[in-house]
Amino acid sequence: MTRERLEEIRAQLDEINLEILELLSRRAELVQEIGDLKKRKGTERFDPIREKEMLDRLVAANPGPFDDSTVRHLFKQIFQASLGLMEEEKKELLVSRKKRTEDTVIEVNGVRIGGGQPVIIAGPCSVETPEQMDAVGAGLQQHGILLLRGGAYKPRTSPYDFQGLGKKGLELIRKTADKYGMAVVSEIVSPSDIEMSLEYVDVIQIGARNMQNFELLKEAGNVRKPVLLKRGMSATIEELLFAAEYIVSRGNTEVILCERGIRTYEKATRNTLDISAVPILKQESHLPVIVDITHSTGRKDILLPIAKAALAVGADGLIVEVHPEPSVALSDAKQQLNLPQFAQWMEGLKASGYLPKQEPVPVK
Amino acid sequence: MTRERLEEIRAQLDEINLEILELLSRRAELVQEIGDLKKRKGTERFDPIREKEMLDRLVAANPGPFDDSTVRHLFKQIFQASLGLMEEEKKELLVSRKKRTEDTVIEVNGVRIGGGQPVIIAGPCSVETPEQMDAVGAGLQQHGILLLRGGAYKPRTSPYDFQGLGKKGLELIRKTADKYGMAVVSEIVSPSDIEMSLEYVDVIQIGARNMQNFELLKEAGNVRKPVLLKRGMSATIEELLFAAEYIVSRGNTEVILCERGIRTYEKATRNTLDISAVPILKQESHLPVIVDITHSTGRKDILLPIAKAALAVGADGLIVEVHPEPSVALSDAKQQLNLPQFAQWMEGLKASGYLPKQEPVPVK
Amino acid sequence: MTRERLEEIRAQLDEINLEILELLSRRAELVQEIGDLKKRKGTERFDPIREKEMLDRLVAANPGPFDDSTVRHLFKQIFQASLGLMEEEKKELLVSRKKRTEDTVIEVNGVRIGGGQPVIIAGPCSVETPEQMDAVGAGLQQHGILLLRGGAYKPRTSPYDFQGLGKKGLELIRKTADKYGMAVVSEIVSPSDIEMSLEYVDVIQIGARNMQNFELLKEAGNVRKPVLLKRGMSATIEELLFAAEYIVSRGNTEVILCERGIRTYEKATRNTLDISAVPILKQESHLPVIVDITHSTGRKDILLPIAKAALAVGADGLIVEVHPEPSVALSDAKQQLNLPQFAQWMEGLKASGYLPKQEPVPVK
Amino acid sequence: MTRERLEEIRAQLDEINLEILELLSRRAELVQEIGDLKKRKGTERFDPIREKEMLDRLVAANPGPFDDSTVRHLFKQIFQASLGLMEEEKKELLVSRKKRTEDTVIEVNGVRIGGGQPVIIAGPCSVETPEQMDAVGAGLQQHGILLLRGGAYKPRTSPYDFQGLGKKGLELIRKTADKYGMAVVSEIVSPSDIEMSLEYVDVIQIGARNMQNFELLKEAGNVRKPVLLKRGMSATIEELLFAAEYIVSRGNTEVILCERGIRTYEKATRNTLDISAVPILKQESHLPVIVDITHSTGRKDILLPIAKAALAVGADGLIVEVHPEPSVALSDAKQQLNLPQFAQWMEGLKASGYLPKQEPVPVK
Repeated sequence: MTRERLEEIRAQLDEINLEILELLSRRAELVQEIGDLKKRKGTERFDPIREKEMLDRLVAANPGPFDDSTVRHLFKQIFQASLGLMEEEKKELLVSRKKRTEDTVIEVNGVRIGGGQPVIIAGPCSVETPEQMDAVGAGLQQHGILLLRGGAYKPRTSPYDFQGLGKKGLELIRKTADKYGMAVVSEIVSPSDIEMSLEYVDVIQIGARNMQNFELLKEAGNVRKPVLLKRGMSATIEELLFAAEYIVSRGNTEVILCERGIRTYEKATRNTLDISAVPILKQESHLPVIVDITHSTGRKDILLPIAKAALAVGADGLIVEVHPEPSVALSDAKQQLNLPQFAQWMEGLKASGYLPKQEPVPVK
Repeated sequence: MTRERLEEIRAQLDEINLEILELLSRRAELVQEIGDLKKRKGTERFDPIREKEMLDRLVAANPGPFDDSTVRHLFKQIFQASLGLMEEEKKELLVSRKKRTEDTVIEVNGVRIGGGQPVIIAGPCSVETPEQMDAVGAGLQQHGILLLRGGAYKPRTSPYDFQGLGKKGLELIRKTADKYGMAVVSEIVSPSDIEMSLEYVDVIQIGARNMQNFELLKEAGNVRKPVLLKRGMSATIEELLFAAEYIVSRGNTEVILCERGIRTYEKATRNTLDISAVPILKQESHLPVIVDITHSTGRKDILLPIAKAALAVGADGLIVEVHPEPSVALSDAKQQLNLPQFAQWMEGLKASGYLPKQEPVPVK
Repeated sequence: MTRERLEEIRAQLDEINLEILELLSRRAELVQEIGDLKKRKGTERFDPIREKEMLDRLVAANPGPFDDSTVRHLFKQIFQASLGLMEEEKKELLVSRKKRTEDTVIEVNGVRIGGGQPVIIAGPCSVETPEQMDAVGAGLQQHGILLLRGGAYKPRTSPYDFQGLGKKGLELIRKTADKYGMAVVSEIVSPSDIEMSLEYVDVIQIGARNMQNFELLKEAGNVRKPVLLKRGMSATIEELLFAAEYIVSRGNTEVILCERGIRTYEKATRNTLDISAVPILKQESHLPVIVDITHSTGRKDILLPIAKAALAVGADGLIVEVHPEPSVALSDAKQQLNLPQFAQWMEGLKASGYLPKQEPVPVK
Repeated sequence: MTRERLEEIRAQLDEINLEILELLSRRAELVQEIGDLKKRKGTERFDPIREKEMLDRLVAANPGPFDDSTVRHLFKQIFQASLGLMEEEKKELLVSRKKRTEDTVIEVNGVRIGGGQPVIIAGPCSVETPEQMDAVGAGLQQHGILLLRGGAYKPRTSPYDFQGLGKKGLELIRKTADKYGMAVVSEIVSPSDIEMSLEYVDVIQIGARNMQNFELLKEAGNVRKPVLLKRGMSATIEELLFAAEYIVSRGNTEVILCERGIRTYEKATRNTLDISAVPILKQESHLPVIVDITHSTGRKDILLPIAKAALAVGADGLIVEVHPEPSVALSDAKQQLNLPQFAQWMEGLKASGYLPKQEPVPVK
């Protein structure tokens, strides 16, 4: 008999489920109508006071057996789902795959970032001297590198550390890049420098410490120049996407996301490379995703396997720091490859089939 | 006219809300009946296949405007709430305030832990020699300390580090405690030692590394002796409560929770004391909560302010490591107070009104 | 005989120790002389190439038994210590206690921050409407609050969230503060707004996301107005001090440090309040240190014990968010106290003796 | 003239460097002699009291310009280096590459773990029913899987969650494995079960929560059966190696290290896969290293790219959870692949060249 009663109850439950569904749907239609009315009037659609009233009324009428907090919870879910209907057009981010299914491909200096072939962005941590830049330019050119990085503005923990050459640094890297047929990737740290930088850089880098410097993001959104946006030291994947949205929503659609390691308790590496972020970002967004293997590890000795992992997981490119004489570098001395190490690293990467063959860039 | 229509829709929504509530309540009663039937039959109440069927049926019948995933989401919430009803008696943990509103008070050696007056548990990291233990016992006795801590079994990162004196250590701390009228708090690391330890210890300590050593927790739950349970290095507050539940659910209701810092990126302290955990634990559970100020900071120089903070936030007691000659200690040399430092610390704490006056323990 | 030989060796070791010391000291004097020479010439004192040469020469001459890497390590330590001598005047930060032993006291609106009596900074998360600000001003005035906070520029994760009223918000909070005899604490997010803000705010707040926005820090260092600097979400204590140094080294010595919780795995609180940071900062720096209890916990239900803990640990003040109607607030709705809750909180705090009696501010 | 004086000083510095080196070397030889003497006598070689005396004497004799704390620091470095000499034979761990340069290869069921070809360990989170195990065994056998995982003892956060079938579970997985020609990998949680388990399992798994359950490690070290040791949720790479050393130092040299993600603030994945740990472990240790891709991500949707990354970075194998009907699984329902998903995953992995072709296992 128990079994029979069980079947009976189940049939009733199915019935009730459908009735609830019907009511929910009718309710939703009414809410949509409110949304339209409010839209015409230009009123904010979410009305917390009205919501509070409805909840109070429901709790007052609650016959049990649910306790009041459960009733509140369930109806909040229902209200929220309805609100979702009202705000449908708003809720998907422009950077989201749901808004745009095909990959964004960003072309810089003939290189297609996000176009299927991984790209290498290489160069010193800081732009220091003409000799240093020329040495690194000549060295990288041998390996077909087309994207030259180098910091002119260096955000440093201490105000007494070398802060970069500033505009003089931008001039220097531009000159080097021009000589060796490369494009310039360089960090800008001040909203008021974005405009000026357009003359010197081909890709504006926004560093980890500035990922939520929203004024800088807004300025970067106002220009039409690719932006390489690094994930903040303790930013979530979601926060990185929102930061990119600040740029894209202003009209600058060419944003390259960069995973560069997050801060954790582990000290064997400078940061902890969150490799899973790459496929998640690729899935949730149409923007290209690259990995800064130097900052995420801070260790030269594992750069080859980490580069392979980053490409295997689907990254559209890598950033790697290269300096002609790392031991005398003015910043990040320990983690930069010298030119022979870079050559060896490139060879290792090519040997394992992760990189297409690259010809030396023809010098102009 | 818009305004009128808005009012009209709102009235309809209120109507529908109440209809949904009525259906949800009828539904809930039926689910309760199923729960009773299943209980009699001894079947598991959660039936994922049945749930899947119901969801599939609803989605098939979905008339819009909600999309299918919203329908699934809302009904999952409804099912879950109903399941909550079925499992009402199970869902509240025994350690929860909802199960028992008054504070659990644990009496050890005349000291009431959780009884409103904060307690001090002091002693060396490791039990080392009779001389060391006697010195520390005599020193602490001067300050009215009634709870003596000291490790006989030391879980150490390296197998080559000093692992404690084992049973000989337990004998030694017992002897010292007896001489100076104190109770013994000492860590046990192996399930098979719990039984044996009852002869020597008054409070069984379970260390951070063993917070989720469930076999050890179960054995500790099988005896009738207070347990001091330390939060794991990266355990959430919720996981600590579940770990305590392993003990309490076996019948041993005397558990003292201990916040001892969590592992974060910050290296200025050995761990990061999660001070907020104390009031949250006190709110969610009726068990006493103490703070290990030595392990959470690993720094002698801030032990006085941290002790004040722990007591101000509502902790029922403190653990502090004291060693007659810290510089030659076999473990944690740098963070243990010596006896004059301990005296100064006690004085500072009393001066600020956080501790009741304590008389020296009368020596037997 | 073993014993005798042991004594003999020990005597020899003591001898050698002193000889090494003498050589190290002579060496250090020479290095100081180099420092002076270089200073006169204006050359950079650290010379990595020269250091490399010296190390190579030592390794080449290494007779054992130390292996080469140990020799390198020991001499690097020696070189570094010598370099310390050369840079003596540089190495202590201006914010350090070693540079200034007495506490920095910052006077705002007659309130002395860092002067021994804890201060309360209260107000809504965002400045929203004249009615809201007037209600909160009137409410806080009843409790003698002299420092009114409220955000006009809101750094928000999503570009679509309410971003604050901007300059209009500054005008509004200024007006409210003037009416109720209070000073204004408000966040500025753009370097180019610092100058303009001086007209409206009495304390410039720099938020957690901008703690390493060095351009903003530099601008804040260029004005003469107190700055409230919040610790970044995953900043170390040392990084916070360096960020303050950016401001102080530009001549603005009035910086208030603010602990506001760090990002960890624990989700029971919005952030993890790093209470140990307070006494460490007080020890290492002469600047006042306050605690933002609202953002560090994100939970109203533990604000009273946490406030007690923060004051007990030695904080110079607290920030707490108060809104006349939190449920309709445009940001941080869940964590703001309403006015009756604030009154209760103040009462609890006073009752426990942590706060001096405060008279209502006389309305102008 | 400055230039000349500079050259002069530099020559003197070189001279002094060599004199210091000579003294350090003589000193080191004496310390070695002490070490030998003590070894014969069986005394502990590190003598903190003697060290303190030497430091005090040096500070008393300090002529400057170094301050006393620098003198202490430098000589502590020198003492420590000397101590290193005394303990030379002890300091390298057995698990270290420095102790053994060639890779440890562990053969199980004809599979060589660590032998160059990556291995796949697959199976359900929990052993549940004969039907479930048979389905999964048959399914995996199609893909040539030779190592079957499945939990009989399940360490669960809540005492009320399904705790595994225990010994009955071991019997079940053994039977399934035998039928399909596979070896058994299963977790043991209690030291007293290790002995018993030898009859059923081919590889003893020690889970993340038990990585520092040293009693369990010791027991696992006492038997002669391969051990798969998972990294603790917040364990450092160094702590994982020490945990392995507990096992190896007892004589059981067959340990497989397993990276399974660490606990961080990021919630997009269940844990954060620390991919850099793999090459670091491979560099520092000769033991095989595998990656548990299921627990490190907790997301089915990125298992293919993550598997590729793990193999590209040099992992010796992967663990992946597979269940015939994940939605009704008693644990980890959301993250287990069903059999068609597993087939697709294998295909993807083979297509990208990371896996050798695998023939179905011949059924006995």
